[in-house]
Amino acid sequence: MNGEFFLKKEASISVFDRGFLFSDSVYEVCAVIGGKLVDWHEHFARLMRSLDHLDIVNNFQEQDFYQVKKKLIKENQLTEGLCYVQVSRGVAERDFNFAKKSLLPTVVIFTQEKSILNNPASKSGIKIITVPDERWQRRDIKTTQLLAQSLAKTYAIQKGVDDSLLVQDGIINEGSSSNAFIIRDGRIMTPSLSKAILGGITRSSLVKFCQMNNIEIREQKINIDDLMSSQEVFLTSATGFVLPVVEIDGRNVGNGLVGDMVKEIQRIYLDHIKAKLS
Amino acid sequence: MNGEFFLKKEASISVFDRGFLFSDSVYEVCAVIGGKLVDWHEHFARLMRSLDHLDIVNNFQEQDFYQVKKKLIKENQLTEGLCYVQVSRGVAERDFNFAKKSLLPTVVIFTQEKSILNNPASKSGIKIITVPDERWQRRDIKTTQLLAQSLAKTYAIQKGVDDSLLVQDGIINEGSSSNAFIIRDGRIMTPSLSKAILGGITRSSLVKFCQMNNIEIREQKINIDDLMSSQEVFLTSATGFVLPVVEIDGRNVGNGLVGDMVKEIQRIYLDHIKAKLS
Repeated sequence: MNGEFFLKKEASISVFDRGFLFSDSVYEVCAVIGGKLVDWHEHFARLMRSLDHLDIVNNFQEQDFYQVKKKLIKENQLTEGLCYVQVSRGVAERDFNFAKKSLLPTVVIFTQEKSILNNPASKSGIKIITVPDERWQRRDIKTTQLLAQSLAKTYAIQKGVDDSLLVQDGIINEGSSSNAFIIRDGRIMTPSLSKAILGGITRSSLVKFCQMNNIEIREQKINIDDLMSSQEVFLTSATGFVLPVVEIDGRNVGNGLVGDMVKEIQRIYLDHIKAKLS
Repeated sequence: MNGEFFLKKEASISVFDRGFLFSDSVYEVCAVIGGKLVDWHEHFARLMRSLDHLDIVNNFQEQDFYQVKKKLIKENQLTEGLCYVQVSRGVAERDFNFAKKSLLPTVVIFTQEKSILNNPASKSGIKIITVPDERWQRRDIKTTQLLAQSLAKTYAIQKGVDDSLLVQDGIINEGSSSNAFIIRDGRIMTPSLSKAILGGITRSSLVKFCQMNNIEIREQKINIDDLMSSQEVFLTSATGFVLPVVEIDGRNVGNGLVGDMVKEIQRIYLDHIKAKLS
C-alpha cells in the first residue's frame, strides 16, 4: 500500500478514500505463472490509460510497480495465481466535486493464489447463461464499478452454472469479467472494441497472434442468434486465459464438448505467453 | 464504524472490503438541522430496501443506527450539516462471486458540517448544464457506484456552472445527486419513478405535501423541450432541499430570476420538515 508492505489483516484504507465512497478508482489483474507476471507491460499501460481517462494524478513508473509486484510474489511465495493493483483518486472530505483538488492517489497491490495452468474449467469447459448488461456506459475504462458484474457472476452460480454473458439489445458484449469469442464456419469472431466493452489484454493478444498465424479473426457485432448457432464459444481473461463454453442458457454449444479449434487456440496461446513472462 | 467510534484520521476499513473492491455497498445521507435529523425514518427505510435489493445481510435496527447518529452529532457538536451512513457487503477474499458467503456487513457512519438553511444557492438559484446519463441501469438502488455522478458534477464545476442534469435519449432523468422538477403553465412536473432514477426522499416528501395542499403535481416523462420551455425549474435533495435553477446550458430559465412558485415551495417545504425533525 502506497509503497509500504503490510500483513493482509493490517492492510487498510481510510473510510474517506474516494475508492470506497464514490467507486472513484481503477484496477488491473495480472496472471502469475511460475512466479512471473503475464503481459505485465500491457496491463501497466492500460492502468495508465484508465487513470488518464478519469484525470487521476499519475506520476507512476512501470518499474516501481514492477518491483513491488516482484517483491510481493517472492514474500508470498506465489508460484501461480494473480497480482492485483488498484489505484483510487485518494482520500478527501466527501464531495461529488473533485475539481481543483490535487489528491494523492491510493495504491493497493496484493497477490492471490489461483490454479491457472491446471484450471479444470479449461479442459472441461464451462456453462453460462445470458443476462442483461446493466453496467454503466464507459466499460472501456477498467473501474471498480463492478457491482453489476459481481451480481451477474453470483446469479450464474446461484443458477447452477459457471458464469454470465452480458447482452444488450440482443447484442453480445462480454462475460462478467472476460471477453467473448465465437467460432462459426471456421471463422473466429469477437465483439469490436467500443465503449460497450473492456478491451481485454488477453483478447488483444489473441487477436494479434491469430493475425500473425494467418488464422482468420473478425471483430464485429455479434447477436444472440450468431452466438446460439456457433460451433464453438470461448471466453478470455487475464487469469482464465482461454475458457471453452460448452453450454449456453441450457443448450449445448456444438455437440456440448470442448471443440478442436478452442483446444488449438489454448495450445497456441500458452506457447505465446510463455515467451512473454517477466 | 461497526459500533465503535474513531477519530476521523483513524477510521479505516480493510482493503478487502467489497465496498472498495467491487462498489458492493449502499448509502444514505440525512440532513441535520439544529442538531436533529431530517426524515430519518424514511432514509433508514430506503437503506433497508437498498440492502434487500443487493441481498446484503440485514439485521439492522432503526433505533441502533439512530442512537449512533445522535451520539456522533453530539460528539461532533454538529448543529447543521449531514449524517452519512454506508453499508458494504463486508470483507472477503476478492471474488466476483459472493454466493454462499454469509459476510458481516461493514457499517460506516460519519457527519459533515454544511450550511443548509442559509445556503446562498437556495436564494440566488443555480446554473446547470445537461450531460448524457452514463450510470448503470439500476439507479433506483442507492449504491456507491457514483463515479458517473461525480464526473458529471466535476465537469459542471469545470465548465463554470453549479451542477449537471443527466439526460438519456432526450429524456430528463435527474441531477448529479438530486431530483429534477419543472413548472410549466402553473403545473409542477417531475420524472416518474422507475429504474432510471433514484426515488429521492425529498422528492417524495414534496410530491406528498403538494397533493395534501391541493397543488397540482404530475409524475411523467419530461423531455429536453419541456425542460427548456419551463417557467421555473428546481432540484431537490436531502441536503440541498429545494434549489431553484436559473440557467440551463447557458439559457435563462424564465426571466433568469428565482421564480415565485419555487419560493413558495421552499417556504412550504421548510415548514413541513420542521415538523419532522428527530
